[in-house]
Amino acid sequence: MSDVDRFLKQTAEWLRSSGPNSDIVISSRVRLARNLSGFPFLGKLNNELQEDIVESVEEAVKKSSFLKDASYFRYHSLTDLDRQFLLERHLISREHAGEKGDKAVAITHNEVVSLMILEEDHIRLQAFQTGFNLIEAWRIVTQVDDELEKNLDYSFSSELGYLTACPTNVGTGLRASCMLHIPSLVLTKQVHKVLQALSKLNLAARGLYGEGTQAVGNFFQFSNQMTLGQNEEEIIDNLERVIRQVIDHEREAREYLRQKRKAKFEDQIWRAVGTLKSSRVISSQEATQLLSLLQLGINMELIKSDLKAQEINALFLLIQPAHLQKLIGKPLNSSDRDIRRADLIREKLVKVNL
Amino acid sequence: MSDVDRFLKQTAEWLRSSGPNSDIVISSRVRLARNLSGFPFLGKLNNELQEDIVESVEEAVKKSSFLKDASYFRYHSLTDLDRQFLLERHLISREHAGEKGDKAVAITHNEVVSLMILEEDHIRLQAFQTGFNLIEAWRIVTQVDDELEKNLDYSFSSELGYLTACPTNVGTGLRASCMLHIPSLVLTKQVHKVLQALSKLNLAARGLYGEGTQAVGNFFQFSNQMTLGQNEEEIIDNLERVIRQVIDHEREAREYLRQKRKAKFEDQIWRAVGTLKSSRVISSQEATQLLSLLQLGINMELIKSDLKAQEINALFLLIQPAHLQKLIGKPLNSSDRDIRRADLIREKLVKVNL
Repeated sequence: MSDVDRFLKQTAEWLRSSGPNSDIVISSRVRLARNLSGFPFLGKLNNELQEDIVESVEEAVKKSSFLKDASYFRYHSLTDLDRQFLLERHLISREHAGEKGDKAVAITHNEVVSLMILEEDHIRLQAFQTGFNLIEAWRIVTQVDDELEKNLDYSFSSELGYLTACPTNVGTGLRASCMLHIPSLVLTKQVHKVLQALSKLNLAARGLYGEGTQAVGNFFQFSNQMTLGQNEEEIIDNLERVIRQVIDHEREAREYLRQKRKAKFEDQIWRAVGTLKSSRVISSQEATQLLSLLQLGINMELIKSDLKAQEINALFLLIQPAHLQKLIGKPLNSSDRDIRRADLIREKLVKVNL
Repeated sequence: MSDVDRFLKQTAEWLRSSGPNSDIVISSRVRLARNLSGFPFLGKLNNELQEDIVESVEEAVKKSSFLKDASYFRYHSLTDLDRQFLLERHLISREHAGEKGDKAVAITHNEVVSLMILEEDHIRLQAFQTGFNLIEAWRIVTQVDDELEKNLDYSFSSELGYLTACPTNVGTGLRASCMLHIPSLVLTKQVHKVLQALSKLNLAARGLYGEGTQAVGNFFQFSNQMTLGQNEEEIIDNLERVIRQVIDHEREAREYLRQKRKAKFEDQIWRAVGTLKSSRVISSQEATQLLSLLQLGINMELIKSDLKAQEINALFLLIQPAHLQKLIGKPLNSSDRDIRRADLIREKLVKVNL
């Protein structure tokens, strides 16, 4: 078993669906962008300089109490499937999953912290928490950052703050985000209003896999757009306050559906379950959409089942292409995946009775 | 319990799905159009003459060994719901279910023979058989017709044959039809070719409830267009020969789906079952379409179940609006029916496992 496959056997700590408001906020994440002083940004780095950076960061990782036992992978030692797998687990970024180059990633065993080397910035450091808990994610990431900084010389301007490859990250280099599951705002067609309000507040809404990806299965990643002009706590406070409102709206929408649109709503939920329990061919997109409705049904106690929210969270991951292929243990083309995905879902949903 | 409600408790003899090729031909029907000599056709009849006709036919019915024990209803004594119910059972015609007037119908207890008085013609006499068995339906209907003719003076021209209200029925006054269930010709998009060929042969294809109704749930009623220029046996022979070919095509299409489109096909069948077993709100049209796929799955032994073809045939009827309201025992609006229909289907499909 490769070290990467080890992750297949576990549910990441931050998908355990045990944190505050975890029926709506799946997970909270804070990531920092950092660059080493004295080196150009990624676009201008030759191979030798890249190697120097990787080695420096590697050294600092070994000296970090948080990261010294982490799994450590050079991208060129990973197969395409491995990198796709780490992307699906949100441990590396979409834009860099396709590349080999001299990149590397360190991942703690519970998958709470990952440190990407030579992605858009020299260093991207992120911490995840289950549920609505940005403060704890921030507490962790800043501790690791402080430790690393003891052994690394970060590119920092007293006027601008941390310098980054893309100007949108200059300043704190911080992006805080929460993955929200807001199916009722989608079903009641209020989600566009929410997204509009968000954009006026300089917050961004993205799909499951970050920038440029579509919202699928009623999941939206909400994050700050601004990294400059506010300190870290202000950025997080601001995002938290807005998300708290979105949570309230989603709860109201759930009650509206339960009380005012009962028959149609229950029909939508149960049909989703019926399709999940019966289909023989299913795309990851359709499955995600239907699992979202199952999750909602369980959250709202319309569906009584021994299946735990955490198991459904795990299933959202397991049905992704790379996870599915690793689980089956061989490469599968798209049609074969659609068949195996349907098999897996039926097997996992045996505990849910129609 | 009204005499009409008696039928609710039984499955009509001709829906027992036991006849030849009954996996494709649900039922065979032969009907005769007859008018009484010395009376104008329906459009020109005053109330008094209508009453005279009803009385004359009633007399003949009482003297018929086939019909003397039949249930007998005057339309004006039936509620709107009763008439809708009899229409759904194919015992009276769509065009006349909405009218009261001085119409009447006699129905044998097994629902094999029904005689409608003062619908489009003075008399419409029909016999049903389960499966592909036009010959037997013809044998029965002609026996009843011969009996009635002993006591009724039919309007007959030695040149043209039986005279009828609409010229398309003149001659034999005979319409033979079979209700075909050809889902595989629909799924493989061959059905339009079949319908085109049929129309060139002067045969008609209609929906579940005859002329002017849409094909629903992959059911098509095939019948002769011509009543003139051929004798009864020729009409029936001709229709039988064509239907035999359609049966062969449907069987080939089933094998094609099984062998060449296995995954997608099984997916379609199982999703239909999943939806039937889970929906909380369902229209009769959607339910008919999905039950058709369940029926196909059972016919092709993809679905192993104790549910018999006959029980599904009965369900096609029970989910119709009037049947559903009689079953529940009270009037229901369309939204309530959609909910009760879903409940009924889930209850009936408990025996089918996903």
